[in-house]
Amino acid sequence: MKQVVNVGLLGLGTVGGGVYKVLRNFKDVEILKIAVKDKDLAQDIEGLDRNLLTEDAKIIVTNPDIDIIIEVIGGTGAAYEFIKMALENGKHVVTANKELIAKKGDELFDIAKANNVLLLFEAAVGGGIPIIMPMKMSLAANKFEKIAGILNGTTNYILTKMDEENADYEVVLKEAQELGYAEADPTGDVLGYDAAYKIAILASIAFKKKIDQAQIYREGIDTLNPIEFKYANDFGYKIKLIALAQAIGNKLDVRVHPMLVSTEHPLAHINNVTNSVVIKAQPVNQVMFTGPGAGEMPTASSVCADVLAIVSEIHSTNNLLPEMRCNNTEKVDILPIDETVNKYFIRIDADDTPGVIGCIGNICSKYGINLSYIVQKDVTKDGLATIVILTGFCKEKSVIAALNELSSLISIKNVHKTIRVMEL
Amino acid sequence: MKQVVNVGLLGLGTVGGGVYKVLRNFKDVEILKIAVKDKDLAQDIEGLDRNLLTEDAKIIVTNPDIDIIIEVIGGTGAAYEFIKMALENGKHVVTANKELIAKKGDELFDIAKANNVLLLFEAAVGGGIPIIMPMKMSLAANKFEKIAGILNGTTNYILTKMDEENADYEVVLKEAQELGYAEADPTGDVLGYDAAYKIAILASIAFKKKIDQAQIYREGIDTLNPIEFKYANDFGYKIKLIALAQAIGNKLDVRVHPMLVSTEHPLAHINNVTNSVVIKAQPVNQVMFTGPGAGEMPTASSVCADVLAIVSEIHSTNNLLPEMRCNNTEKVDILPIDETVNKYFIRIDADDTPGVIGCIGNICSKYGINLSYIVQKDVTKDGLATIVILTGFCKEKSVIAALNELSSLISIKNVHKTIRVMEL
Repeated sequence: MKQVVNVGLLGLGTVGGGVYKVLRNFKDVEILKIAVKDKDLAQDIEGLDRNLLTEDAKIIVTNPDIDIIIEVIGGTGAAYEFIKMALENGKHVVTANKELIAKKGDELFDIAKANNVLLLFEAAVGGGIPIIMPMKMSLAANKFEKIAGILNGTTNYILTKMDEENADYEVVLKEAQELGYAEADPTGDVLGYDAAYKIAILASIAFKKKIDQAQIYREGIDTLNPIEFKYANDFGYKIKLIALAQAIGNKLDVRVHPMLVSTEHPLAHINNVTNSVVIKAQPVNQVMFTGPGAGEMPTASSVCADVLAIVSEIHSTNNLLPEMRCNNTEKVDILPIDETVNKYFIRIDADDTPGVIGCIGNICSKYGINLSYIVQKDVTKDGLATIVILTGFCKEKSVIAALNELSSLISIKNVHKTIRVMEL
Repeated sequence: MKQVVNVGLLGLGTVGGGVYKVLRNFKDVEILKIAVKDKDLAQDIEGLDRNLLTEDAKIIVTNPDIDIIIEVIGGTGAAYEFIKMALENGKHVVTANKELIAKKGDELFDIAKANNVLLLFEAAVGGGIPIIMPMKMSLAANKFEKIAGILNGTTNYILTKMDEENADYEVVLKEAQELGYAEADPTGDVLGYDAAYKIAILASIAFKKKIDQAQIYREGIDTLNPIEFKYANDFGYKIKLIALAQAIGNKLDVRVHPMLVSTEHPLAHINNVTNSVVIKAQPVNQVMFTGPGAGEMPTASSVCADVLAIVSEIHSTNNLLPEMRCNNTEKVDILPIDETVNKYFIRIDADDTPGVIGCIGNICSKYGINLSYIVQKDVTKDGLATIVILTGFCKEKSVIAALNELSSLISIKNVHKTIRVMEL
């Protein structure tokens, strides 16, 4: 007979409720206690014994009968304190908290190591998609080169709708909020913070380095214009919020911003709230993991997988899942965005007169920028010609310099924000 | 300092060479011996000490200094004997051998259990794609409902080219053979045997049952006609060789045959030699794993992952990776193809006269078949009208009966082979 493993659950919100519902089906796990902020306000779940609820998380993380703590409170305040306390009390911890792992992971992993316990976080990236364990175990023989992911469902939903309906950002955001796909304060999602936490975590695993997530360059989706989706489509691209991480010399290039993704690339077809991660590594070459990036039940799938992995080995070894530890010792610098090399989508409004395209070509050439396409599109209501450009690979700072010079020309009226183009 | 784990390698073909090249970079693993058929004919690998080679695999699988045996010989003859001997000698075994696991897995897993060793086979399905470990560990909290995969690279390459170039099967097969994407004898791939082995393995893991792979219904891609790709495209579908497994009552519906896949579904965009597996399970809902389904280095990635997973735990526990064991006790019956329920793509050549479509509609209706579309396409050289039909869900045997009755009508000249339509 299997020995039952006792678990303490911190938080009974959306994810916590899902974890409770899934985990109670497993006979070798027992949820001994559930910490909530306010017992009277805690959600009603059919069959939930409300005697399990407590408002004192501390008695859970210090309870000697509990082996595993599940943290689904979120944020970096109480969650941090309780995880730390749990680890110091010799308890394994499973969390879905991407912000905390991205910001305080290095410290917490060291505390876990010192206490010979595990801190697992499969649900922190990609929701229900198996990604952390596959990277650390199934791809253990690989040297990672590049990760590109759609890691935020809210923004992917908005971008999908902007593309399909050629609709304005503000309109689609409002719809997304009404449907529950975007929060009342959408900042964390639409400005790329959430995706930045997640790519910081994936990069630290892939490249085995400590990463200061605050150094990660972020651009949101809030400045995108429906016309850009149309022109991107004309060139055979979709616009996606891409979280990127790649090794460049002794630095890491880690960033989050909108990118044009060729429809030849499978990431272009990841729509609505679905998330997906493409990993380039040797010897595997390229693999892709796709699935639901959030939600009560998918997230619970990942949280419970971590719990069950601990449960299956907890009574047979004192050295559980050694491959799942994350104790990076070396810090790495993030490549500044100016130094990154990309292809660019550039949109310019100019006088509809001869010579403008030649002039643009000359200035780009002066800054070493190869043009793959330069096309004159529609003429705007003001009689301006829209010119759309796709460049070859060039350094960000060269593009900025070239666009600055272009902006100063009399015949050029607007140089719109550029969008980088993904290559994998 | 980590203790070195000694490994014996059986086979030094394409995959064996890849495994050797990858594994020699890991300091805690040492390849002590390599079994080959003929030492003089064994491939030359830079840096390979040819003293490692032996023609006597038996001395490897019985060598008391060796902890892990890697079998990359293939087939069910010698590979079976040596794996069995290795397990009985208390050695962990890692294999890439899908045919052997599909045909003899149940027996071998029981021998592994009796000797308290692991038999791992990540590379047997999906080549470099992490799929076995993610299913068994990352999705451990899930109840599996359905698996649909593109599990054979050769056939997916041929289907991609037939679609893109509207080319005949025979022509594309010849090209694929010249490019090394298809073998001189392509039977195992094009008739679906290879995919059937793989879906048998995935189904046995998902549904935890013993499966008689010989019961799995197979249809190859050799009878597909370029015109079917064109009509499928008109309806918004691609044609893919799909390996399917789903629970239907107390039976499993497991089969391999070409299917129409909606371009709305990500599997439709898996092209060339890439493989992909979609898993529907609760609570995760749906996840998809995509990557290279074969090849020296991707396959080596998976083989070496299994080896490293064993290596990381071998010295700390006598109960390695309990979640990775496969000891199914119960046999399950496979649903006969006649009993399966599908949507169908039907192509009929008929006299170009009024009343034919009405007549088809009446007969389908008599057999309880709902029609989603019925469209008259081109008129053939012989003056016949091509009629293309998409049905709603109906039982295979109803469709066969309806088509038999249609065939007997004077106005209907040819009822072509139907193609089932995927729904997920």
